[in-house]
Amino acid sequence: MSGSIFGKMFRISTFGESHGEALGVVVDGCPSNIPIALEDIMKNMDRRKPGNPKVATARKEDDQVEILSGIFEGKTTGTPIALLIRNGNQKSHDYTQIKDVYRPSHADFTFDQKYGIRDYRGGGRSSGRETVARVAAGAIAKKFLEALGITVTAYTRAIGPITVAPEAFCLDECRENPVNMPSNQVAEEALAFIAEAKANCDSVGGVVECLITGLKPGIGETVFDKLDARLAYAIMGIGAVKAFEMGSGIEAAKMLGSEYNDAFYSTDGKVNKHTNHSGGTLGGMSDGSNLIFKAHFKPTPSIAKAQQTINTSGKNTQIEIHGRHDPVIVPRAVVVVESMAALTLADLILCDLGANMDHIKALYSKK
Amino acid sequence: MSGSIFGKMFRISTFGESHGEALGVVVDGCPSNIPIALEDIMKNMDRRKPGNPKVATARKEDDQVEILSGIFEGKTTGTPIALLIRNGNQKSHDYTQIKDVYRPSHADFTFDQKYGIRDYRGGGRSSGRETVARVAAGAIAKKFLEALGITVTAYTRAIGPITVAPEAFCLDECRENPVNMPSNQVAEEALAFIAEAKANCDSVGGVVECLITGLKPGIGETVFDKLDARLAYAIMGIGAVKAFEMGSGIEAAKMLGSEYNDAFYSTDGKVNKHTNHSGGTLGGMSDGSNLIFKAHFKPTPSIAKAQQTINTSGKNTQIEIHGRHDPVIVPRAVVVVESMAALTLADLILCDLGANMDHIKALYSKK
Amino acid sequence: MSGSIFGKMFRISTFGESHGEALGVVVDGCPSNIPIALEDIMKNMDRRKPGNPKVATARKEDDQVEILSGIFEGKTTGTPIALLIRNGNQKSHDYTQIKDVYRPSHADFTFDQKYGIRDYRGGGRSSGRETVARVAAGAIAKKFLEALGITVTAYTRAIGPITVAPEAFCLDECRENPVNMPSNQVAEEALAFIAEAKANCDSVGGVVECLITGLKPGIGETVFDKLDARLAYAIMGIGAVKAFEMGSGIEAAKMLGSEYNDAFYSTDGKVNKHTNHSGGTLGGMSDGSNLIFKAHFKPTPSIAKAQQTINTSGKNTQIEIHGRHDPVIVPRAVVVVESMAALTLADLILCDLGANMDHIKALYSKK
Amino acid sequence: MSGSIFGKMFRISTFGESHGEALGVVVDGCPSNIPIALEDIMKNMDRRKPGNPKVATARKEDDQVEILSGIFEGKTTGTPIALLIRNGNQKSHDYTQIKDVYRPSHADFTFDQKYGIRDYRGGGRSSGRETVARVAAGAIAKKFLEALGITVTAYTRAIGPITVAPEAFCLDECRENPVNMPSNQVAEEALAFIAEAKANCDSVGGVVECLITGLKPGIGETVFDKLDARLAYAIMGIGAVKAFEMGSGIEAAKMLGSEYNDAFYSTDGKVNKHTNHSGGTLGGMSDGSNLIFKAHFKPTPSIAKAQQTINTSGKNTQIEIHGRHDPVIVPRAVVVVESMAALTLADLILCDLGANMDHIKALYSKK
Repeated sequence: MSGSIFGKMFRISTFGESHGEALGVVVDGCPSNIPIALEDIMKNMDRRKPGNPKVATARKEDDQVEILSGIFEGKTTGTPIALLIRNGNQKSHDYTQIKDVYRPSHADFTFDQKYGIRDYRGGGRSSGRETVARVAAGAIAKKFLEALGITVTAYTRAIGPITVAPEAFCLDECRENPVNMPSNQVAEEALAFIAEAKANCDSVGGVVECLITGLKPGIGETVFDKLDARLAYAIMGIGAVKAFEMGSGIEAAKMLGSEYNDAFYSTDGKVNKHTNHSGGTLGGMSDGSNLIFKAHFKPTPSIAKAQQTINTSGKNTQIEIHGRHDPVIVPRAVVVVESMAALTLADLILCDLGANMDHIKALYSKK
Repeated sequence: MSGSIFGKMFRISTFGESHGEALGVVVDGCPSNIPIALEDIMKNMDRRKPGNPKVATARKEDDQVEILSGIFEGKTTGTPIALLIRNGNQKSHDYTQIKDVYRPSHADFTFDQKYGIRDYRGGGRSSGRETVARVAAGAIAKKFLEALGITVTAYTRAIGPITVAPEAFCLDECRENPVNMPSNQVAEEALAFIAEAKANCDSVGGVVECLITGLKPGIGETVFDKLDARLAYAIMGIGAVKAFEMGSGIEAAKMLGSEYNDAFYSTDGKVNKHTNHSGGTLGGMSDGSNLIFKAHFKPTPSIAKAQQTINTSGKNTQIEIHGRHDPVIVPRAVVVVESMAALTLADLILCDLGANMDHIKALYSKK
Repeated sequence: MSGSIFGKMFRISTFGESHGEALGVVVDGCPSNIPIALEDIMKNMDRRKPGNPKVATARKEDDQVEILSGIFEGKTTGTPIALLIRNGNQKSHDYTQIKDVYRPSHADFTFDQKYGIRDYRGGGRSSGRETVARVAAGAIAKKFLEALGITVTAYTRAIGPITVAPEAFCLDECRENPVNMPSNQVAEEALAFIAEAKANCDSVGGVVECLITGLKPGIGETVFDKLDARLAYAIMGIGAVKAFEMGSGIEAAKMLGSEYNDAFYSTDGKVNKHTNHSGGTLGGMSDGSNLIFKAHFKPTPSIAKAQQTINTSGKNTQIEIHGRHDPVIVPRAVVVVESMAALTLADLILCDLGANMDHIKALYSKK
Repeated sequence: MSGSIFGKMFRISTFGESHGEALGVVVDGCPSNIPIALEDIMKNMDRRKPGNPKVATARKEDDQVEILSGIFEGKTTGTPIALLIRNGNQKSHDYTQIKDVYRPSHADFTFDQKYGIRDYRGGGRSSGRETVARVAAGAIAKKFLEALGITVTAYTRAIGPITVAPEAFCLDECRENPVNMPSNQVAEEALAFIAEAKANCDSVGGVVECLITGLKPGIGETVFDKLDARLAYAIMGIGAVKAFEMGSGIEAAKMLGSEYNDAFYSTDGKVNKHTNHSGGTLGGMSDGSNLIFKAHFKPTPSIAKAQQTINTSGKNTQIEIHGRHDPVIVPRAVVVVESMAALTLADLILCDLGANMDHIKALYSKK
C-alpha cells in the first residue's frame, strides 16, 4: 500500500509526481449539497504558491485546478470530486546529479531501497509539490466545515529561532506579511534571518500553529482515533514536519497537575475552561474550546552548500544543490497545515454522526 | 465508529472498561508460525503493573492474561488471537462524586457530550487501565519483530523537569530503577520530585523516549502513511500524551539546513549517516538507522488538591479526588509506548511486503 | 490479514476455533443508547442451536453468551461491546484421521497451504461453529435496526430439490417446523428427504431466503458498495454458500426489459412499484420496497460415505467421516443469514448518515 | 462514504459521471517494477467499446486513456497510477424528460432520495459509462497477475434464454463473434434474439462466466474475506448484476454431499480434484484448481417501449426512452467482469503475502 489514501469517511486519494504529467486528488465521501466554486479552491492554491522572492523559490508554479467531476450546477452531488492540476513545462533539464547521487535529508535513498526504482527527475511523491493535491482537497473540506460554522486558521509561529511571543501576537496581521506571521514586526526579523541563511547557501525551518474555532464537543474517538492522534497523523504526514504539539505540548510534561488541569466553570449555563492547556480536547474528544496545535518543520533539505554524501553505487562523494529552491518552506506550508486539519475534522465529524442512537433516530426518521 | 480498531494489516480490536467485567483484545492478521508463550505476554504485562509505592498506585491490579484463540501448540496459526484480562474485584464503592461532577482534565464531560451516556464508575475506556489490552497485543507484535531481528526499547527520559542529560545516559540502567530512567542517579532525583508532588496532593508528567534497532530501510509509506505519521498517530493515541517528536523534533525547526541534514557516508559498502537528526526516517520511510522518538505526557489528572469545576447540571462546584491514584504514570507508560510502536512497525512491515513486484514474484513462486 | 473484521462503521471482529477455549466477537462502532438485554442475544443464539434430532447433530453445543463490555445499565454506551462464548467440554478424542487426511470439500488442505500450520482438532475457523460469533453480533445489529423500524426475517426456501412454491408460502409457519420453512406441509417433505439422505450416509443443501421490511430509500452506495454487493459479500462469506441472488436473481438474465423493469406508481403521494424484480434496490441503493435475496448452500461436506481423497503426505487414500455431523445445516443457517444481513444494513445506514449536508447540518446543530 | 474506493492493499478510487468532464481512476498500492504500456490498457478499453451495431449503441464513445502518474520509463514505480478518460462531446441536448421523470429500473429515484440532488444529464455514476475506470484499472491488475502466471478470461455464457451448452462450448471462439460467446453458432442465435428484442423496442440480459487459471492455493481469507465473498462483492457491484454463482452455484443446493464434494487425488505428487463443483475454492481460499464463477445481468433498463412511472413531483406518468441505448450490455460487460475479478485477485494476493512468518522472514531478509 503506497499510502496515498487519507481518511475513513471523508476520504481523499492523491496522485502525481513533481515532474510527471499532472497531480491531483479524488475526494470520496464528501456530502451532497455543499456549494463549491472553483474560486473557493483557487483561493487556497494561491496561498500555497511561492510569493515573495525573499522567502520562496523563483520558479513559476502553475497550479490551475480543473474540476473533473462531483460538482454540478455549483453544488456537490455526493459523488467523487476529482481535481486535476497539470504540471507546467517541467523541462527535461539535466538530472544526472540527482539521478546518481543521494541528496542528504531527501527520500532518494529510501525510495530506491523500498521500490528498486525511482523517478529521478525530482522528488517525485516526496517533493513539496505533492501538497498541491492536499490543498485542493482541503479547500473542499473547509467548505464542509464552513457550513457548520467551523474555522481553521494557521500561521507561522516561528522561523528558525525567531518566534512570535504572546505579547507580540496579532492574528489579523498573519496574512499581511510574506511569512504569514501574526506580527508584522517579527516578520521583518524573520525575513532578515531567512535572507542571511540564503546568502550563506543555507536554509531554515520553523513552526506553524493552527487555531480551530466553532467545533462542538464530542468530535474525535476515545481510544486510538483520538482527535489529538488523528491530527498528529495528518500533520506528521506532511513532508518536513518532525514534531507535533497539542495545546501546551511539550510544556505539559514539565507542569504539575494543579497547573496543567484546565478548570471548568459555567456562566449562564455555558461550559467554559479557565485555561486551555489541553488544546481543546479531553479524552481524545473536542471539549468545545478552541483547538490549538503546533507543527515543527525541519529546514529545507536542498542547500547550495557542499554536503558529504554517497552515490547510488555506494561510493562517498559530495553534492551542492543549486537551482531554484526555497530557503524556507514554512510560510507556504501554512495552508497545507490548514488543509490537513480541515480534512481530519471533516472525517471525524462524519464518523461522529453515528455515535448516538437518539440522534440517528431523529435523522433517519426524516429521510 | 468508536475507534477501537488499530492497524491495516496487523490489526487489533480492543475492548473493556476500567470497572467492567473484563478488558481484552483481538489481534487479526498476525502471521502464522510465530512461537508465542503466555510468558511472552505476561512479561510485558508485569512491566505495566504498579510497582514501587513511591511512584504508583497502591491498588492491586490483577492483569492475568488468558489466551482464547489463535495459538496452537505454542505457535500462531494465522487466525485471530484473542486475549482476555478479567477485572479483579472492582468493588462497587461510592461513585456519587464522579457520577455527578466532571473531573478537570478527564473525559467525563466529553463522554457525556458525545454519547449522552457514561459508565460513571470510573474512567471507562478513558482510564489508563485500557492500556492493558494494548500491552497484551504489543507483546505479540514484539514477537513478530523479534523474529526479524528488530528490538523496541522505551525508557523514561524525563520526569517533570528532571531530565536524563546525554552525559548521564546509560541504557542498561533503565530497568534497574522504579522510574525506568536510563540513569539510576537521575532516577533518585526524579523519585524525590515525585514524592514532593505527592505530599502536596499534586501530580507530575514526563517524557518517554523510544529506540528501535534492526529495522531495514524502506519501511513506511511515502505520503500520508509516513513512518513518522503512523508512529505519531499510535503514540498520540495513548491517553495523556500531548506532544510527539521524531529524532531532533522541535529542535529541528531551529536548526540550519547545513546543521540538520544527516550526511551519508559509506564504509565497506555499508551506508551510514554521520548524525541522526531525522530519527531514522527519510521521506517517511526507514533509512536503516535506529528509529528514535519522544512522547510527552501531561501530569496525572487526578489530584487530591481542590479544583474548581462544574457538575453534570452545569453548576459551578469544587472537587478533591482522593483514593489510590498514581502521582505519575510515566514509568508505567514506558511499556505502553513500546507496545504501540511495535504494533505500528508490525503493520507497516506487512504493508511493505507488497511494495516491489520483484520481491512478490519470488515469494509467490515459493507457495 | 486473516479477514475476521467485518464492516466499516459498524464493525465486528470475531475470533475463536471450534475446538479452542472460546469464540467471541467485539462490536466496534455501535451507537450509544440502544437498550440491549442478554435475552436479546440468547434468543438468536438459541435459534442457531441444533434442535430436531432428525435435522441436526446430536452433540450438545453450549452457546451461553457473556457480555464483557460496552453495555451499562441495560444500554449501549458507544464503546466496544465484547461477547464471549466458551466452548463446552471439547474432549480431546482421537483426531488422527483428520490430522493426517484432507477431508473433501473442507478447508483442511487450503489451511495447510496458506498458513503451513493448522489446528487439526476440527474445522478451526472454518467450522460452522465460527458462526456463533456472527449470530451474537447480529443480535446487536438487529436491536439497532429495530430501533429504526426495520425487520429482518430469513427462512428456508428449499431443502435440496424440495422448494416452497409461491402458492404454498406462508411466512407465519416458518418458525413452526424444525426446518424453518414457510410451509409446514413442505417441511414434512423436506424432513423425509433429509432422513433419507442421512440413512444413506449422505447430506443435503438448500436455499435460505431473506426478507427485510421498513428500510427507507437511499441506503447503500452507488458504485462498489452497492447494497446488492455488500449483501452478496456478507452472505457469500458464510461457509457453504455458493450462490447469491438479489430479487429475481438468475431469472432476471432471462427476462426482457419490459418484463423485468419494475414500474413505479404513486398512490396518495406514496411511491410504489408494481413488481419487485430488483429485490428492493436501484443503482445499489434501497428504493423503499422490501429487500429480498436468496443464499444457496452446498450440502454439508462431512458424510459417512466413503470418499476418495489424499493424506497430508500427498498419498491417495479414502475417508469415511463418522461422528455427530448435521446432514443439513440450512435450517440452522437461517439465523446466520439474518445476522449477516443485519450487520450489513447497520453498517450502510451509519455510512449513509454522511450523505447529505442538509441532514448533517440539522444533526450537528443539535449537538 | 460514496463507496468509490475498492480494495484493501491494491486499491482503486474511481470518479466521473457519464455527462461530466471526464472519468478516471487512481490505483494506489500497485507494486513497483511491473512493465505497463498504454497499449496494455487500451487493449482492454477497446473490448469495452460498442462494436457490432446489432448488439450495441451506435453512439461514439471515445475512451482514450491518459496516464498521469505512477509509471516511469515503462514501469510502475510503486506510487499512485492515475488514469484519465475525457468524455467526448456530450452535447447538451434536451434532458427535460429524464430530469423530471424517474426511469424505471434506473437509479434516478434513489439518487434523489439519497442525495437530494442529481446530475440529471444522464445516469451519472450509475451509467454503464462508469465502468471505463474499472476497465482501465483492471488492465493494471491484469499485468500484475500476468507477472505471476495467472490468466483471467470472461465470456458470454448466455443471452436471455440462449445458453452455450457444455457440448457446444469452445473457448477459442469467444473473441470471434460480437457477443463474445464461446460458440460462434450459438452466437448467431443470440444475435437473432437480440435483433428481435430491439425491433420490439425491448432489451435483453444474459450471463457472463469467468475462468481464472494459474492461481496457487491459499489465496483468500478464511472468514469474511473468503475468495467467494470478495468475488461476489466485486461482481455484484457492477451495475445490472443481480446474481452470482461460484462453481456449481445454485445447482450445489440441490446436490447430495456425495455428488457435490470434489474428491482429491494425486498424480506424481501433484494434488488434483476429480470435479470442481466448488469453483476452485475451499474454506474461502483458492485450492489450486481453476476458479470459475458466473454473473447474471438483468436486461438493459432503457427501452423504447412505453412504461408506467412517476415524475419527480410524485405524479403518475409514462415514459418512452428513445435514443442510442444498447439492447444488451452483456457482451461489453465481459471485460468489466474480468477487470473486477483481476482487481480482487491482485488485492487478495497482496493480503496473502503476510500470512506465513516463514515466508515473511525469507522476504524481509533479502531487503
